[in-house]
Formats: sequence, C-alpha cells, structure tokens
Amino acid sequence: SKFEYVKAFEKEVYLLPETYMVVRVDGRGFHKLSETYKFEKPNDLNALELMNKAAQSVMEKIPEALLAYGDSDEYSFLLQKNCEIFERREAKLTSTFSSTFTAYYNFYWKDYFPNSPLTPERLPTFDARVVLYPNQQNVKDYFSWRQVDCHINNLYNTTFWQLILKKGLTPQESEKRLMGTLSSDKNEILFTELGINYNDEAEIYKKGTVLIREWELKDDQPSLNERELSKRQKDRLRKKFRKAKIQKYHIDIINEGFWNERPWLLES
Amino acid sequence: SKFEYVKAFEKEVYLLPETYMVVRVDGRGFHKLSETYKFEKPNDLNALELMNKAAQSVMEKIPEALLAYGDSDEYSFLLQKNCEIFERREAKLTSTFSSTFTAYYNFYWKDYFPNSPLTPERLPTFDARVVLYPNQQNVKDYFSWRQVDCHINNLYNTTFWQLILKKGLTPQESEKRLMGTLSSDKNEILFTELGINYNDEAEIYKKGTVLIREWELKDDQPSLNERELSKRQKDRLRKKFRKAKIQKYHIDIINEGFWNERPWLLES
Amino acid sequence: SKFEYVKAFEKEVYLLPETYMVVRVDGRGFHKLSETYKFEKPNDLNALELMNKAAQSVMEKIPEALLAYGDSDEYSFLLQKNCEIFERREAKLTSTFSSTFTAYYNFYWKDYFPNSPLTPERLPTFDARVVLYPNQQNVKDYFSWRQVDCHINNLYNTTFWQLILKKGLTPQESEKRLMGTLSSDKNEILFTELGINYNDEAEIYKKGTVLIREWELKDDQPSLNERELSKRQKDRLRKKFRKAKIQKYHIDIINEGFWNERPWLLES
Amino acid sequence: SKFEYVKAFEKEVYLLPETYMVVRVDGRGFHKLSETYKFEKPNDLNALELMNKAAQSVMEKIPEALLAYGDSDEYSFLLQKNCEIFERREAKLTSTFSSTFTAYYNFYWKDYFPNSPLTPERLPTFDARVVLYPNQQNVKDYFSWRQVDCHINNLYNTTFWQLILKKGLTPQESEKRLMGTLSSDKNEILFTELGINYNDEAEIYKKGTVLIREWELKDDQPSLNERELSKRQKDRLRKKFRKAKIQKYHIDIINEGFWNERPWLLES
Ligand SMILES: Nc1nc2c(ncn2[C@H]2C[C@H](O)[C@@H](COP(=O)(O)OP(=O)(O)OP(=O)(O)O)O2)c(=O)[nH]1
Ligand SMILES: Nc1nc2c(ncn2[C@H]2C[C@H](O)[C@@H](COP(=O)(O)OP(=O)(O)OP(=O)(O)O)O2)c(=O)[nH]1
Ligand SMILES: Nc1nc2c(ncn2[C@H]2C[C@H](O)[C@@H](COP(=O)(O)OP(=O)(O)OP(=O)(O)O)O2)c(=O)[nH]1
Ligand SMILES: Nc1nc2c(ncn2[C@H]2C[C@H](O)[C@@H](COP(=O)(O)OP(=O)(O)OP(=O)(O)O)O2)c(=O)[nH]1
Ligand SMILES: O=P(O)(O)OP(=O)(O)OP(=O)(O)O
Ligand SMILES: O=P(O)(O)OP(=O)(O)OP(=O)(O)O
Ligand SMILES: O=P(O)(O)OP(=O)(O)OP(=O)(O)O
Ligand SMILES: O=P(O)(O)OP(=O)(O)OP(=O)(O)O
Ligand SMILES: [Mg+2]
Ligand SMILES: [Mg+2]
Ligand SMILES: [Mg+2]
Ligand SMILES: [Mg+2]
Ligand SMILES: [Mg+2]
Ligand SMILES: [Mg+2]
Ligand SMILES: [Mg+2]
Ligand SMILES: [Mg+2]
Ligand SMILES: [Mg+2]
Ligand SMILES: [Mg+2]
Ligand SMILES: [Mg+2]
Ligand SMILES: [Mg+2]
Repeated sequence: SKFEYVKAFEKEVYLLPETYMVVRVDGRGFHKLSETYKFEKPNDLNALELMNKAAQSVMEKIPEALLAYGDSDEYSFLLQKNCEIFERREAKLTSTFSSTFTAYYNFYWKDYFPNSPLTPERLPTFDARVVLYPNQQNVKDYFSWRQVDCHINNLYNTTFWQLILKKGLTPQESEKRLMGTLSSDKNEILFTELGINYNDEAEIYKKGTVLIREWELKDDQPSLNERELSKRQKDRLRKKFRKAKIQKYHIDIINEGFWNERPWLLES
Repeated sequence: SKFEYVKAFEKEVYLLPETYMVVRVDGRGFHKLSETYKFEKPNDLNALELMNKAAQSVMEKIPEALLAYGDSDEYSFLLQKNCEIFERREAKLTSTFSSTFTAYYNFYWKDYFPNSPLTPERLPTFDARVVLYPNQQNVKDYFSWRQVDCHINNLYNTTFWQLILKKGLTPQESEKRLMGTLSSDKNEILFTELGINYNDEAEIYKKGTVLIREWELKDDQPSLNERELSKRQKDRLRKKFRKAKIQKYHIDIINEGFWNERPWLLES
Repeated sequence: SKFEYVKAFEKEVYLLPETYMVVRVDGRGFHKLSETYKFEKPNDLNALELMNKAAQSVMEKIPEALLAYGDSDEYSFLLQKNCEIFERREAKLTSTFSSTFTAYYNFYWKDYFPNSPLTPERLPTFDARVVLYPNQQNVKDYFSWRQVDCHINNLYNTTFWQLILKKGLTPQESEKRLMGTLSSDKNEILFTELGINYNDEAEIYKKGTVLIREWELKDDQPSLNERELSKRQKDRLRKKFRKAKIQKYHIDIINEGFWNERPWLLES
Repeated sequence: SKFEYVKAFEKEVYLLPETYMVVRVDGRGFHKLSETYKFEKPNDLNALELMNKAAQSVMEKIPEALLAYGDSDEYSFLLQKNCEIFERREAKLTSTFSSTFTAYYNFYWKDYFPNSPLTPERLPTFDARVVLYPNQQNVKDYFSWRQVDCHINNLYNTTFWQLILKKGLTPQESEKRLMGTLSSDKNEILFTELGINYNDEAEIYKKGTVLIREWELKDDQPSLNERELSKRQKDRLRKKFRKAKIQKYHIDIINEGFWNERPWLLES
C-alpha cells in the first residue's frame, strides 16, 4: 500500500561482531514492589530463588546464554562472543530478554509466594539493556563489578537492618550510624555490637548466584568461530548447548580461578 | 571499586526530541503458540480481547501513551511528541513496553482462556521496537499501514479458512486457489462460492482495535510543549492524562476524519 | 578473500527520513590559527569573506544545500528535508562537508591572504557534525541560535578590543571590566566611554552571513516529496537547484519575515 | 537565549572503549579526477607518493595514529586501542581525518604535480569512516584485506593496460579478454603474451605503502592502559609518540611476521 514507506523509518542497530554481549535485566520499582508483597528484609530467600528460577528458565529458552549472575532484583546474562542471535539486533535482544524474564518471573511467582498472590496494580516487570565488551578481561571485570556491588549492598543492608532489629534503632538512626563507615567498620559493628560474624551469613546473600551452562569444548569439536562453521555444524552445536545442564552456585567469580576452570565461557 | 570502569561501556541512545515515538510489540512465535493453545481460526475473539486488555492496562500504567492500535498478535502505542519518558532512552522504552505488555497478557490469560492454562514450555512473550516519526502525516500513515495490513491479512485468512471449512479444500489447495488473487477476487469467492458477505464480518476482525485516551486540550490549559512547562504544571498535566478514560473502538483510522476529531492525539 | 568478513564491522547510520538535516562545520583551533596568520581583531574581514567563499563553493558543489549561515570560524548548511544525499549516511555527510569545505578554504586562501601564505605546520582544517531537526520551528530556532551567538560574541569582542585599543587596558583588565556585564552595559560602555555606536558596526560583523539558493517552487512544478517523484523528475529538479543563483546577505534571520518570504527553504 | 534548546538535538556517538579504531579515507570521485589531472595508467607514482605524503603528515599531526596503510586513492589509519582521542566521538574522528588529509593532499599537490595545477571545479576531497575492531586478529585481517585488494586491483589493472598498450586492444576488448580469468591466468598472460614478469613490478604498486610509527614499549615504561595512567604519564607518553620517527615500507603485512616484529602496534 502507499503507506508502506513508513517501515523505512525503523532503524536497526546491529551490535559489533566478535564482541561479548551482556544483557542485564533489573526489576522496575522493586523498592515499592518488595513492600507491597512484604519481602523479608534485608534478604528474602524466596524472592532471590524466584529470580534464580526465572533466570534459569531464560537460559533454557535461549541457548546462546552461557553464564548468568544475579543478586537483588537484577540478573546479567553473558552471550557467546560470536553468536548471531537475532542477527545481533539490539532491540530484539533487550525486548526478548525483558519479556522472557518477566513471563517466567510472573509464572513461577505462585510457587515462591503462595500466600501473596499478584495483583494487577503492581505486576513485576523488568527493564533490560545490552552492553558490549571487547575482551575477556572486560567481561571478567563486569561480573566482578556486579559481585562487588552485591557484597557492598549486602554488608550495608545486613548491618542497617540488624541495628534496627536488635538494637531498636529507627531507620533514620541506623542510616546515620552507618554514614561514612568503611567495610571494616560495618564488620566490626556486626561482630562487636550485634554478635554477628558476617562470614557466617548465607552464601547466596553474600555472593549472589551464578548459573553456568556446564558445557565443555572437546578437542574433537569444531572451532566455535561461527564464521567457520557450516549451517549443519552450527545446528549441531546449538543442540549440544541446549542439552548441557545448567548449574547453580554461590561462589566467588572475582577470582581468576573461576574463569580458568571454565575456559569455554570466554572462548566460545 | 577498580571494576567500575565497565559501566562506561554502556551506550545510551537518546531518541530525537520533538519527534513522535511509536512502540510496537509483537508476539514471539505466535504461529506456534496459537496452535499450542488452540486459538480459533482464523480469528480467536478471546485472543484478540486479551491483547486489548493487556494494551489497555499498559496505557493505564504509562500515561504518555495516547493511542494504541492492535490486531493479530501485535499492538502499536503512540507516545506524546514532547514527552520525556525515560529521558527518551531507547532500551528503557523497548524493554519496559515488552515487559509490561507481557506481564499483563500472562496475568489476564486465565480470564480469557480458563480452559487452556499456560505451560512453562510456551509462555507468551513479545518483542518491541521504537520507531520515530517526525511529523503528523507520518504518524497517520503509520497507523493506516497497520490497519491496511490487518484488512489484507483478515480478508485472506477468512477466505482461506472458509474454503477449507465449507468447501473441504486442504490447506494446500486453499493456498493455491488464492494465489495471485486480488482483494476483489477474494470478496467474490466469499460471496459467490461461500455465501459470505465480507462486510458482515465482525468489525474487530476487519478493522482491528483502537484504544484512545479520551482527553482534550482546553483553552485554559497550558501548552503541551514540555519545554515551556514548570515541573508543577507537568505533574498536573500528567495526572490529568492518567485520569482520562480509555475508550475502545473498531473503526476506520485511515480516514482523515478520525484524526481531525481528536486533534490532541497529534498536537500534544 | 578470507579477510572480507571485516567489512561487516562497518556500521552505517542512516539518518531519520523526512527530517531536516543541518551540517555545521567549525574551524579546528582557530584561536591559534588566527594568531599564526595574524587575523585582525576582533574581526578580520578577509577571513570572514574567505569563509563565505568556501561556503558558497560548497553550496555550488552540493545542490541539496539550500541555505547556509556563517560567522567566526563556523558555517551551518541546511539540507532539503526529503533529500536522499548519500542515502542519508551520517559519516558520508560529515566527512564530505568537512573535506569539501577544507579544500575550498585552502584553495582560495591565497586570494584573501596574499601576504600570509599557508605553512604546513598549521593548515586550516574543519570538524563537522550533522544535527537532525524534525520540524520547521526547530530549524528556524537553530539558525536563530547561531545568529544570537554571533551577536553576543561580536558585542563582547568589539567592546573587549576597543577597551584595549582605545583605553590602553591590558587584556586581563578588559576581561575583568566586562565580567558580569549585560548587553546593555556593553552598548553603554561602547557609546559613552569609547565613542562607538554599536549600530554603526558593519552588518557582516553584527549579523553574520546568509547564503540562499534563490529558487522558488512554482505551481506547475512537481511536488518536492522525493517519494512521489520519478527518477527523471528528480534529476530535472536537481538540475534546477544547481542552476539557481546563490545570494549573499547580512540580515536578520531570527525574524519570521525572513522565512515567510522564502517558503521553499523549509517546504522542500 | 530561548533558542539554546536546539543544542540538545545533537547526538553524540561515543565509540566502544578498548576497541581498535580504524579510520579509512577514500578519494571522492577519483576515477574522474585521475582523468582531469591526467594520472598515469594504471599507476601514477606521483599520485601515490602524494597520498603517502598526506598520510604521513596526518600521522605527524595525530600522534594516536600508530600505523597507516594506503594504495590507490585510499588510506587506513590504526589508532591505539585505548586512546581517548576526541573522547572517541565518531563525528569528530571522521570529520577531522577527512579534513586533515584533504588539507595536506591539496597543500602538497604542487610538489607532485607541478605541471597540473588544481582547478576549483575539481578539488581533491576525501570521505572518511571509522570502523571498530574488537581484537588483534580482526585488525590484522582488516589490513590484510586492504593489501589483498591492492594486489587484486593492481594485477588486473596492469594486465588490462598492458593489453591495450602493447597489444593494441581497445578497453572493451581488454575487459572482455580478462573476464573470468584467475590470478594465475593474468600472471600467465603478462608473462607469455606481454613479456612481463609481474614479480618485477614495483613494490609500491604490488604491495601498497605502510607507514609505521617506529616506537617501542620498553620494560621500564608505564603500561599503556590509559585507565591506569596519571595525566602526567599520559602526556609524557604522548610526547614520546609524537617524536617517534615514521617509516615508510612497501612490504607484506599479511604475514604474521610483520605484526610479531612490531608488538607495540597492537598492544598499545
Ligand atoms: N526487602 C527486600 N527488598 C529487596 C530484595 N531484593 C531487592 N529488593 C529491593 C531493595 C531495593 O530497593 C530494590 C532494588 O534496587 P534498585 O536500584 O533496582 O531500585 P528499584 O528497583 O526500586 O528502582 P529501578 O526501577 O530499578 O530504578 O529492590 C529483598 O530480598 N528483600
Ligand atoms: N489461529 C489464530 N492465530 C492467530 C491469531 N492471531 C494471531 N495468530 C497467529 C497467526 C500468525 O501465524 C501469527 C502472527 O504472525 P507473526 O508474523 O507475528 O508471526 P509469529 O508471531 O509466528 O512470528 P514472530 O515471532 O512474530 O516473527 O499469530 C488468531 O486470532 N487466531
Ligand atoms: N582575530 C580573529 N579571530 C577570529 C576571527 N574569527 C574567528 N576567530 C577566532 C576567535 C576564536 O578564538 C576562534 C573561534 O572559536 P572556537 O570556539 O571555534 O575555538 P577554536 O576554533 O580555537 O577551537 P575548536 O577547535 O573549534 O574547539 O576563532 C576573526 O575574524 N579574527
Ligand atoms: N590513472 C590512475 N587512476 C588511479 C590511480 N589511483 C587511483 N585511481 C583511480 C582509479 C579508480 O577509478 C579510482 C579509485 O576507485 P574508487 O572505488 O575509490 O572510485 P572513485 O574514487 O571514483 O569513487 P568513490 O567516490 O570513491 O566512490 O581512482 C592511479 O595511480 N592512476
Ligand atoms: O544499576 P543501574 O545501571 O540500573 O543504574 P540506575 O541508577 O538504575 O540507572 P539506569 O537509569 O541506567 O537504570
Ligand atoms: O512485522 P514485523 O515488522 O515484525 O516484520 P518481521 O518480518 O517480523 O521482521 P522483524 O524481524 O523486524 O520483526
Ligand atoms: O560550538 P560547538 O558546538 O562546537 O561547541 P564546542 O564547545 O566546540 O563543543 P564540541 O566539542 O561539540 O565541538
Ligand atoms: O571501498 P568502499 O568501502 O568505499 O566501498 P564503496 O563501494 O565505495 O562503498 P561506500 O559507499 O561505503 O563508500
Ligand atoms: Mg536501573
Ligand atoms: Mg530495580
Ligand atoms: Mg536493582
Ligand atoms: Mg516481527
Ligand atoms: Mg508475532
Ligand atoms: Mg505479528
Ligand atoms: Mg566545537
Ligand atoms: Mg573553532
Ligand atoms: Mg567556532
Ligand atoms: Mg567508497
Ligand atoms: Mg574513491
Ligand atoms: Mg578507492
């Protein structure tokens, strides 16, 4: 029809080839949402496990996602460097990840919050973005950045809430008490004033959650550079990926050892 | 931390100011999904009304959306030309619309398909994109394009399925029968061979659905150019938008009359 | 060859259709360059006329440029809203305008500065950018912005240098004297202390220079919407553009009258 | 002024950090230009050396350019991976390279073509683009791609023109003669029919020209990751770069050896 010219106004952004793509989703307005549905403070185990369940489901649906790391209301997914998912179109990536994560989070909600049914006034939704990283060090640093952030937030939140719960401080007093304190100070407050050894806190709170597609490139397998693969080899590889089990950990990913033991994460 | 430099790799796309933004969401793999959940062919009224319900809910959550048009598994939302929603950041727009639409579609599913509960193997998800249009004519032409598309698809699908249902053709035979036919030919086949007057088909199938925020700029109201509004005026205006009723129609939007009667849609 | 895959890393940005494109070139490091070649202060008429010559030559080479406005070391070119120059590829536009402007500026240098030959240590070069404007008001405001800027700078520079030349102030003293002054204050200083009526200054200094392709859409001519033109009609139109004379003015372009008298500038 | 809002329509593209940037300039319409100024066919040594002179001058002006490769009417410049030149703004890069290259090419023209002065109807101009490459292999492949292209074109052009010059073929006949021939066929034609050993052709024609900033990272020097350098260290480094001699070669850059011997090209 004579209206079809409007299609030409669509602008495609094709993301740089051979570059790592990380997609991060983050809950929209979860400060409010965590109050509406009465999440436990500072950490609600069910809320975190529901995030993990949604992320794992996303990884099962999207085989190009090799690794995921999450804490609080966010999750980051690492895609294969060479993958041609959605022809590397940015809007397809952001919208599909946000939509798929949202669908699973909402679907499994009832299993994790059987007594707090969702109400249409406040359904959980997630924004998403893609970030490009040109080399392995950048990718490691990205995930380290998120895990350090998890640690900083969790140490703060733990101390903040324990001061309220155990010492009867008001939120304002607790905030003031922590202003300007270093990590070592918070550890000290927890230990001396509140009788808590921060090291004994649950690993899922301190470290967040890592999901890994447990898959290893064998010597007899074709190289992973998609450019060098035939259509059939690609399909076979994809199938293998899809079958690989996804494992859940609460471990240190800042350490080089983590990456050295799983070379396929960054080489593929 | 020393890892924070990775944040700088995030690239923000701020969409051109004073330009109309249209967000289109489209169901991912609805060909398959419509079979899994046994949608009626060619049109499933419940499926369409669920789309409408989700779109209306999105409009209620996002007051900047003035108009929406949908058919099949897609919906297009028109945002105010001057609006500063998400600072006009593209990834925020695409991911929020896809996520919010998905959340509502899944939430209300049970009301429209009480006998076909969702299964985690195939949850409904939606991609999204933003398209910019610099002037009013472009916007009208965009929505005309979608409505023409609805018409073309519906005329084809109606004839295709009626040939199967009433004349016992196989899908292959029906496809072959329609190859190369014009609209007038299909109307003729429907009328002469199948005893159907296409004009009598339901308006929602022929025209799709328009959702309009019924809101009118009064003379005593401030101009809508956000640049010229104070923070307080903006908030007041936003509130008004939020309160305005959203009406549902199955009417012709290709006609100039549609737009002339609702000048606020393109002027605000 | 097996190396050809690298071509795919090139990213094309196609600028939004039906949107005004303005290309602005600006001299690189002209603060230093104006000292090297001893430009007169605050305004060097030869330098300005060389800018005008280069800009006019650019317009002759690139018929899509309808209007240009320049002052100091910068020039802005307005392109037809619908033009498909370089398929609207951004890098082609910026690099071609900067290159072409540079070539002419250097070529004609000897005619305007016969006694200051160029030295390879400091050749004049220009950066360039494209800016998109969706509607006529934006375009008018853009050019008004540049002319207001010319006025502000010229009033300041005139007063600054006259204080030095006529009153023997050092640059530091002159700067200090003008700190915090309004336009009216500077006019007053010029008039009372320096015996200069700012209104009597040369128009080219106060208003900058406008170059206009003097071309008018006649009723018997095809519409200018390129979409609706055949290849042959387009070529004929382009030829007409190329032939139209380019006129030079030093006039007010902030006034609505300027645009109303030349409707083709914004309608084509 | 009230017009300043238009500045916000400028869109900056900041290129991905830690990614190699290659800027390629290419003569605009050099097919025609080479006829206007009577370049020798198929290779005009003066034209090529003028390209080299312009490229070398660009490298002297822009110390971030480590390497350049050129042939025919094009030149590609490799920038340091970590460099923050122009804050990595794309339009600044393309316009500055095209403008600077153009200025030098035009300036030195008279030294290489003393008998063919430039005329304003056809001044040499150059377009430019930036391409991003995430890793070392991509960069090597990029330059290999250009050198292979040089070889293919030169072998073709040499044979094409020798058939005309020595065998009296018309251009049409020569073109037809070469249609469908492989490299080996052309070598054979040259040798058997035209008495030319392609290997004996000048290296500058067969290999193009490489310009290298001869600079080596010593062990006692700071790392080149700009993030880890203080402002002062950066300035010292930049100074060193600026002083390093630029050497000209006509050698094979496809070979790994070329890169291994000059590790600083890809590591810095
Ligand atoms: N009580 C509780 N709150 C949580 C838990 N996990 C996340 N949250 C809340 C605390 C934070 O306010 C919020 C996450 O911070 P964000 O920076 O993402 O803020 P929010 O989602 O409110 O805003 P946004 O839409 O992302 O800009 O989610 C939890 O396990 N328990
Ligand atoms: N039976 C039935 N099918 C419908 C209805 N509405 C939409 N569909 C199906 C028919 C089409 O195959 C599909 C919409 O076409 P699309 O071009 O969006 O394809 P699809 O969603 O499969 O792929 P995509 O992921 O969007 O590329 O949805 C309906 O009311 N009844
Ligand atoms: N003496 C003199 N100087 C002029 C004249 N026209 C322009 N200039 C100089 C004064 C300013 O320092 C400079 C233009 O200002 P810009 O903001 O463009 O600065 P500049 O080109 O130095 O730096 P840039 O590379 O554009 O960031 O050019 C003139 O007619 N006479
Ligand atoms: N006779 C002669 N011609 C040359 C020489 N070097 C380059 N050329 C000409 C031959 C080609 O037609 C042209 C380079 O090819 P391009 O693909 O860059 O084409 P051209 O610059 O005409 O168009 P463009 O504006 O780049 O799209 O320059 C030379 O040494 N001698
Ligand atoms: O943690 P982020 O990156 O989401 O940080 P933010 O402060 O929420 O910023 P944004 O507006 O980019 O989501
Ligand atoms: O109708 P569209 O625009 O979604 O068309 P498509 O063929 O599905 O293409 P796309 O890959 O852009 O969704
Ligand atoms: O006048 P402009 O826009 O060139 O302003 P600038 O301060 O020179 O900034 P830029 O770095 O964008 O050229
Ligand atoms: O050699 P290139 O990349 O310049 O190839 P082109 O065919 O001239 O294409 P372009 O329009 O991108 O300059
Ligand atoms: Mg956020
Ligand atoms: Mg959040
Ligand atoms: Mg968060
Ligand atoms: Mg689609
Ligand atoms: Mg679909
Ligand atoms: Mg669809
Ligand atoms: Mg500038
Ligand atoms: Mg300047
Ligand atoms: Mg300037
Ligand atoms: Mg080219
Ligand atoms: Mg060329
Ligand atoms: Mg070329």
